[in-house]
Amino acid sequence: MMRNIARMRKRFSGIEGVSFRPHLKTAKSIDIARRIFPDGPGAITVSTLLEAEHFAEAGFKDILYAVALSPDKLPRVQKIRSSGVDLCVIVDSAEAVHHMQDHFSQALTGVPFLIEIDCDGCRAGVPHRDGKSLLAIADCLTNAGAELRGVMTHAGGSYLATSSAEIERTANEERARTLACAAILREAGYAAPTVSIGSTPTALAPGSVEGITEIRAGVFVFFDLVMASLNVCSLDEIALSVLTSVIGRRDDKRWVITDAGWMALSRDQGIASHGDSYGYGLACDINCTPVNGAIISGANQEHGIMTVREGSAGEFRSIGIGERLRILPNHACATAAQHLQYYVVKTGSDEIVATWPRFNGW
Amino acid sequence: MMRNIARMRKRFSGIEGVSFRPHLKTAKSIDIARRIFPDGPGAITVSTLLEAEHFAEAGFKDILYAVALSPDKLPRVQKIRSSGVDLCVIVDSAEAVHHMQDHFSQALTGVPFLIEIDCDGCRAGVPHRDGKSLLAIADCLTNAGAELRGVMTHAGGSYLATSSAEIERTANEERARTLACAAILREAGYAAPTVSIGSTPTALAPGSVEGITEIRAGVFVFFDLVMASLNVCSLDEIALSVLTSVIGRRDDKRWVITDAGWMALSRDQGIASHGDSYGYGLACDINCTPVNGAIISGANQEHGIMTVREGSAGEFRSIGIGERLRILPNHACATAAQHLQYYVVKTGSDEIVATWPRFNGW
Repeated sequence: MMRNIARMRKRFSGIEGVSFRPHLKTAKSIDIARRIFPDGPGAITVSTLLEAEHFAEAGFKDILYAVALSPDKLPRVQKIRSSGVDLCVIVDSAEAVHHMQDHFSQALTGVPFLIEIDCDGCRAGVPHRDGKSLLAIADCLTNAGAELRGVMTHAGGSYLATSSAEIERTANEERARTLACAAILREAGYAAPTVSIGSTPTALAPGSVEGITEIRAGVFVFFDLVMASLNVCSLDEIALSVLTSVIGRRDDKRWVITDAGWMALSRDQGIASHGDSYGYGLACDINCTPVNGAIISGANQEHGIMTVREGSAGEFRSIGIGERLRILPNHACATAAQHLQYYVVKTGSDEIVATWPRFNGW
Repeated sequence: MMRNIARMRKRFSGIEGVSFRPHLKTAKSIDIARRIFPDGPGAITVSTLLEAEHFAEAGFKDILYAVALSPDKLPRVQKIRSSGVDLCVIVDSAEAVHHMQDHFSQALTGVPFLIEIDCDGCRAGVPHRDGKSLLAIADCLTNAGAELRGVMTHAGGSYLATSSAEIERTANEERARTLACAAILREAGYAAPTVSIGSTPTALAPGSVEGITEIRAGVFVFFDLVMASLNVCSLDEIALSVLTSVIGRRDDKRWVITDAGWMALSRDQGIASHGDSYGYGLACDINCTPVNGAIISGANQEHGIMTVREGSAGEFRSIGIGERLRILPNHACATAAQHLQYYVVKTGSDEIVATWPRFNGW
């Protein structure tokens, strides 16, 4: 994990005008946030207001809440802001701003907003070519007394890429399209000082980030099998695993049954769409060496079913009841979310040196 | 929920010799356990030792831990038992018993075991036709000083049924095959007083349960879309929903974006294999009336994407930003596991009358 943090820091160190605003939705841990910021709290991104509240309490005072604000959450945003936190929120429609004005008059005053841009058609945001809607939102926000701080996007489409070249193209589009939207606002007289982009694959992709003011990324802290399948990381950079014990074997089916079901692994089958699936995670021995020919073919609530393919008879026979395995996660955000704490080990060791709580919920 | 509990109780009331041992892995809540047992703690089933510990603390002293015991958990089982709890565990191989004896000598003395039977080839257990292995386990347990209390099975295959007739057939096989295994043990001189079976679909299926001593079921407390697709319940019997707000709309894609992503809904797409999928859950209005033509086609961590099909233009237009929706879960166990508490409402009302904590983890 420490190596992954250093790698991301290095990507942007020394680039004038670009700051890194890590997304803490993956880790949801004060202890991990402190390791990303060894010199004290910096700018962060969160996915829930509960995260904002927890991190604010731990001293983080510059927070971007990167999910379009549901109008009913405005009072809670105001409360966090009034505790001295520069909490910035996002919006992608004039309808949302009108709704907030109608229901919470005055509450928008002074609240900083980024307008969310849809750069790849994958989720939320103003379509990047829709300058008219963009300006309508800017107009609404300004009229409501809010602070228009700029634009942001998330290139979630990069997760669907099938090559490094495609990730690079996606990264260039993310940058260019977001900058074009900022230019539209500036030409119309809005300051829009912030241009915020990000996703782990595009953040780590090469190319110029001139004009971009901040980069966000979250899963880089642990990496996972989805990132490995995109060649964004290697398997041995994955810093999160689920420790499990073998509780049964079925010779007739070549099954090894473990006590890690979907409750421990999550239901995320991340890379299935890439045609390179390990099932519910990659089964490894206790030292994180993958078990040849194994696929976690099934997951019930507290049972994992690992099938060892034909031709790997030796591997199958060698795995006895009571043996401990480590399962690497398809999607670190989803797997971590199934747990209440992290058990910290040093690379190559099995000894737990610390326990770091994480927080779930909203 | 109260109606669902009453329905399950009624199924077995008045049947001589059969007791109901609800599986609390779905609810993981002391408050809900107390509603299942209004007259005081009774016999329960759990899926983790953490559940056993929590429920024991709440007064439940007759507990079956229904996942084959990982040998390293034996000391924890002993600790729970020494606090005055009749904690019964399960095993499905002689190898596991030997492993426990080798690593924890004496620890098996007096521990009650059920031997797990595989009645449908879907997960763990001794194959129901493998009398030889069954007797070998019984022999091992007895030699180790453990108490052989009987046999148990879980007809998980019932979830894959495509008709009520198939569920009924599965239920009959579950009963007959488990009774046959009990008979093998008894003929060999083992007492095997307990014959425990269960799954929500087979528990509610008609037919004789003569010879069975206890039935287990868990998801019945809430039901879900998987159970509805099996005609085990109707949609309006589903007692769990995720409340969400609309945060965005995309007219060009007929998308309604909500603040309930997979973190709130889980990644479980339960009924996809039944060809009758709602995506990540069934979108309803605040009163639990399904939105015509809607499918939750995508789920990111904190974003849900609901697509409203062509031909439902009225429905699409009527859903504005800020509107609240309720999402019925594909799989109640998985969706509930994403949350830290239940907000309790009375049928037809929107007012929260209580908050019931639940516990996750192991």
